[in-house]
Amino acid sequence: MASGDNYNNLNCKSTLNLFDLNSPVYCSNHKLPEALQKIADIVGIENVTNSENEIQSHRDSLGNSFKPLKNEYSNLIVYPTSTEQISKVVRVCNEYRLPIVPYAGGTSLEGQYVPTRNGICLDTSKMAKIIRLNQDDLDIVVQPGVTWQDLNAFLQPYNLFFGPDPGPGAQIGGMVATSCSGTNAFRYGTMKDNVLSMKIVLPDGTLIKTKNRPRKSSAGYNLTNLFIGSEGTLGICTEVTLKLNIIPKHEIIALSYFDSIKDASKTVSDLFKNGIQLNAIELMDSRQMKVINQFSYTDRKWSENNLLICKIGGPTKNILNDTIDIFEKISSQNNGFNFEIATNEREKTELWSARKTNLWSSIDWAKSMDPDMKYWTTDVAVPVSKLPNVIEETAIDIENSGLNTTIVGHVGDGNYHALIIFPPEKEQIAKQVLNRMIKRAIDNEGTVSGEHGIGLSKRDFLIDELGQDTINTMRKIKLALDPLRIMNPDKIFKIDPNDVKTSH
Amino acid sequence: MASGDNYNNLNCKSTLNLFDLNSPVYCSNHKLPEALQKIADIVGIENVTNSENEIQSHRDSLGNSFKPLKNEYSNLIVYPTSTEQISKVVRVCNEYRLPIVPYAGGTSLEGQYVPTRNGICLDTSKMAKIIRLNQDDLDIVVQPGVTWQDLNAFLQPYNLFFGPDPGPGAQIGGMVATSCSGTNAFRYGTMKDNVLSMKIVLPDGTLIKTKNRPRKSSAGYNLTNLFIGSEGTLGICTEVTLKLNIIPKHEIIALSYFDSIKDASKTVSDLFKNGIQLNAIELMDSRQMKVINQFSYTDRKWSENNLLICKIGGPTKNILNDTIDIFEKISSQNNGFNFEIATNEREKTELWSARKTNLWSSIDWAKSMDPDMKYWTTDVAVPVSKLPNVIEETAIDIENSGLNTTIVGHVGDGNYHALIIFPPEKEQIAKQVLNRMIKRAIDNEGTVSGEHGIGLSKRDFLIDELGQDTINTMRKIKLALDPLRIMNPDKIFKIDPNDVKTSH
Repeated sequence: MASGDNYNNLNCKSTLNLFDLNSPVYCSNHKLPEALQKIADIVGIENVTNSENEIQSHRDSLGNSFKPLKNEYSNLIVYPTSTEQISKVVRVCNEYRLPIVPYAGGTSLEGQYVPTRNGICLDTSKMAKIIRLNQDDLDIVVQPGVTWQDLNAFLQPYNLFFGPDPGPGAQIGGMVATSCSGTNAFRYGTMKDNVLSMKIVLPDGTLIKTKNRPRKSSAGYNLTNLFIGSEGTLGICTEVTLKLNIIPKHEIIALSYFDSIKDASKTVSDLFKNGIQLNAIELMDSRQMKVINQFSYTDRKWSENNLLICKIGGPTKNILNDTIDIFEKISSQNNGFNFEIATNEREKTELWSARKTNLWSSIDWAKSMDPDMKYWTTDVAVPVSKLPNVIEETAIDIENSGLNTTIVGHVGDGNYHALIIFPPEKEQIAKQVLNRMIKRAIDNEGTVSGEHGIGLSKRDFLIDELGQDTINTMRKIKLALDPLRIMNPDKIFKIDPNDVKTSH
Repeated sequence: MASGDNYNNLNCKSTLNLFDLNSPVYCSNHKLPEALQKIADIVGIENVTNSENEIQSHRDSLGNSFKPLKNEYSNLIVYPTSTEQISKVVRVCNEYRLPIVPYAGGTSLEGQYVPTRNGICLDTSKMAKIIRLNQDDLDIVVQPGVTWQDLNAFLQPYNLFFGPDPGPGAQIGGMVATSCSGTNAFRYGTMKDNVLSMKIVLPDGTLIKTKNRPRKSSAGYNLTNLFIGSEGTLGICTEVTLKLNIIPKHEIIALSYFDSIKDASKTVSDLFKNGIQLNAIELMDSRQMKVINQFSYTDRKWSENNLLICKIGGPTKNILNDTIDIFEKISSQNNGFNFEIATNEREKTELWSARKTNLWSSIDWAKSMDPDMKYWTTDVAVPVSKLPNVIEETAIDIENSGLNTTIVGHVGDGNYHALIIFPPEKEQIAKQVLNRMIKRAIDNEGTVSGEHGIGLSKRDFLIDELGQDTINTMRKIKLALDPLRIMNPDKIFKIDPNDVKTSH
């Protein structure tokens, strides 16, 4: 009987309820050595390891907020060196029903690469070639193991750069998986906006390309954007074509301080309304500025108020100066003060580095209070008009709960990060604070994650945000592409009715 | 047995080959009246019709390039007035296996709404309410029946507008389905970039929302962008949240003429490289300009050369003037001449209207040669560096084949339209020319459609562009969400092994 009839007989539903599934059945222990041997044969013995160290480093990190259980580790770390190898390895995994955790820079924060089912960890970091720069078309074809920093170093002599700037060390493959962004997203978009096409190895080993290379296309389903943000649950990207941008001819850093986050936020909104285009606009709250002064990675002293810091660029000095004037004017209309600009490279780097190193300053602060201090850095996003209240309520909630925090916002996108700092004995309180922060975002028509993704940490919250039927639609798509449930199982949503893990 | 086991036993594949399916089985003739009656009961007798006229107008139009066969018509045109009604109607269709063709403004060109399987046509044009403007967040919630022109008329007093500007009469629901764009896409993006979230009725009647309202999200699969461009094959959108833009404070129209399309194209590329931001940049070839002079919807006379026409905007006059100066300088460096700008509303409208009415001028020209003259307007896109050659080769090919053409390009996006004009007896020649135009795009790493979609016209070409495995992935997703294959069957790719229709 052809499978089409089975489809029809099976069901007429568009969604898949978790409890209509049985638990997945994976490779048995006695078959495992055979499968692993086949995989080692494909990539070569020099490209696999089961060393304790590497298995450990591929299942957890300092930043990872959802810790693996003791028995959650990969049986083998596999470093393929080509698309063909990935396809062959995945075919073996499909045949043996062996789970695969795709792994890139390991900088994700929400448990995305925790090997909940054992199996293999497929680390694409050895595939770090730049394949082809198409300078006139402002695009580039790269392998998934390239970091965004290496990519930008390569592009700099061509006066080009790649927009998304997440945490250092992130690799393109993981950036695709998480749909990350960073401080440039306000102007240059998130990963969703910056990938033209991909080669993907599907969970049965089939290799597809999602699109050709033109900027614009209405040619069938947008598979590119289905895979971006799917956290490795639908396949593994083995080649990516990225959009590039011209480095602005003139760019300066401007900043202004505000007593209230509301005023800072209003400034941003007024800038929009005046059609002012900024290349980045970031907020750091007064708590964060105090910490930066105390645990500074920069030499200068900062006012300990809420800081709005932005990049202003333009093709001519006139355009630049006009934009700076308007920024200053609108800031002061909204009670901004201590306006300042940096035009030379040294000053610009110094000012911006405060933003880029804010996390390290905050962690130093935490450790200075108590070396055992723990922290979670999480992100949510809301419509921009709701951001000031949401930030203020979260900060007060954290402090009223006896914990410490610093807050940084991609204020143009309504996206903010609260670093929740807590001593180990207060983990339960921290969880409650975090839950309220996420719930507050949902209550304000927001999302449980603006750029860090769902992983294991936020699966329950995602249901609260989107509703069970939306999740059941995602699950239906997942099972269609990955019927054996081998591709990064358990991430984003549950695929096993007996999975009892709860979000933070 | 739970369906998960069935999934596992059935197959372990990520893709679905057409020939692994049997033909779909739809509602039998003797069950049909019962199903239609139930549907009429849901929406009310005043919201259904089987009038000859409406059935005809819902299956074809002048612009539609893939004509329905005589027996291809909907049995009932249904005008639901609410999301709830749509959900209920779809449930009935699911129960009776009755095909549904979603219908919006009816401006699509590639056979998207041809009712290949009979069943019902679900016309959302009565759902044309603006639900909520969120002025501070620059977004708006609307029903799918709103046209983009009505939307912009509503937004104008708020100094806001919606980016995508496809053919007049297009409604938001259809614009989502086709992933359309228009002349504003270069600056403001296509539909893919302009939808924040949607409510979708899935093929089994389940209502989901794809996302919440924040600008940025990495919360699970990007269902919003899976549905955009899916041409009604995965579900029906019943509510859409759209991004809005500020109307530029100052905006002028500038133009320059070029002897060669290569020079015009080089101008665009040099403008990019200088970081110049234009609000639109369009090309009309010398053939088009001759036709506009002869069959003008404007009073003025134009030089009969290749025209580059653009919108330049800015928050201050200085910024505007600097940008104009650079445009003029770069144009002349690339042998541009007869540079001109329009600053007042009357002149601006006159200049831009030449672009917006070019299709009507061209059709008038065709009809002046022979009232029976036929035409196809199709679009392809390539990487921008390849555009000049591709346009030139296509124009020569059309003329060498003894046919007429005019060419218009969204030159910043590498996207162009060739109007192929032919007398009825030369339809076969026109088909061959069209095939070569599409093949030429694919050979140049391009796409078979930049903004018109696939419909029935380009299904075979889509396979040439992306490969059978990519189409089989789309088909797997389609069958997962629409196991009964009732939702706009046969569009984008085949879902029936006995479907023998070929592309143009």
